Amino acid sequence: MTYNTLMQITIEISARHVHLSKPDLEKLFGPGYELTKLKGLSQQPGQFAAKETVKLVGPAGQLEKVRVLGPCRQETQVEVSETEARTLGLNPPVRDSGNLGGTPGIKIVGPKGEVELKQGVILALRHIHIDPATAAELGVKNYDRVKVDTIGPRDLLFENVLVRVDPSFRLAMHIDTDEANAAGIDKSNNLGEIISLFKN
Amino acid sequence: MTYNTLMQITIEISARHVHLSKPDLEKLFGPGYELTKLKGLSQQPGQFAAKETVKLVGPAGQLEKVRVLGPCRQETQVEVSETEARTLGLNPPVRDSGNLGGTPGIKIVGPKGEVELKQGVILALRHIHIDPATAAELGVKNYDRVKVDTIGPRDLLFENVLVRVDPSFRLAMHIDTDEANAAGIDKSNNLGEIISLFKN
Repeated sequence: MTYNTLMQITIEISARHVHLSKPDLEKLFGPGYELTKLKGLSQQPGQFAAKETVKLVGPAGQLEKVRVLGPCRQETQVEVSETEARTLGLNPPVRDSGNLGGTPGIKIVGPKGEVELKQGVILALRHIHIDPATAAELGVKNYDRVKVDTIGPRDLLFENVLVRVDPSFRLAMHIDTDEANAAGIDKSNNLGEIISLFKN
Repeated sequence: MTYNTLMQITIEISARHVHLSKPDLEKLFGPGYELTKLKGLSQQPGQFAAKETVKLVGPAGQLEKVRVLGPCRQETQVEVSETEARTLGLNPPVRDSGNLGGTPGIKIVGPKGEVELKQGVILALRHIHIDPATAAELGVKNYDRVKVDTIGPRDLLFENVLVRVDPSFRLAMHIDTDEANAAGIDKSNNLGEIISLFKN
């Protein structure tokens, strides 16, 4: 390493998933429907993977059994990898969660109905979740960008990593499956280092 | 940029493909068969994408219409992305081309027969092709490693990039589709910079 390491961070892989608004949940699963918790997301207390899955139907192809995450959000959001976006026939931008203006829509199919989403498909901007105390220790604030270095035969340095600070968060980095595959990240190689670079 | 840029480089995306030995070509396509050139590889004079494709059949799934590259090689080699390896149900290592000891095999199916490959499936180690004069200008030699920086919303720094020097090469970097998607590399964003870092 030629870097100054600031802090070690666990890297978690976000597979494709959907966040649903309450109205869209009811259109897809029926009136009054409530999501069933499958398992909690370890680094985001209160967030969970639901038992429910949906089908995504794009202009060129479809994806089956796409996991729904809960609880419901204000606006429905679909997160896929670029590989999956190509399968669907979409060209979504890289965005931070919730920033959906101008993103492509998609048809979502559930057991009780369909939703023609007008916008909401994104490639998730790589990011770290961090609690305020750890953020202070690192000297970073919400919406800063940091760099995270990985190890192994496919080691690379993720630049432009968004920092999201929230009291409910525990320190972790989230990347998608393309990014994980490109960096050789899996359950046996899931540690990164938040680093500083010597400036020019 | 906080880096010392050494040289700009075009980044080319290597989709999944197969190099065939002459005996394997004949098993798949028939005795005496010769590959038909579809188009030359711009940065590697003499190498070409063939009209011929094969099917790859792994323990968990298969890939159709996998392009054959020519001319024939001493040993058959299959290059896929990690995403595709998971579809096939294989766990190939990251290797430089031709370094096939201990890699998984696979069944290859052609129009006239099949080959049960004993070894030869790899994830290609990211690399640059470079001619000797440009290598001298950069101060690198065959099998060195360099770092290549990219730009855009998914910008990252590819570390551990293998240098391959050959008089027939023109300067270009080769990455696979997972790496291209992770870095946001496509035909409209295909330039990287070979960089040096200030050492600690």
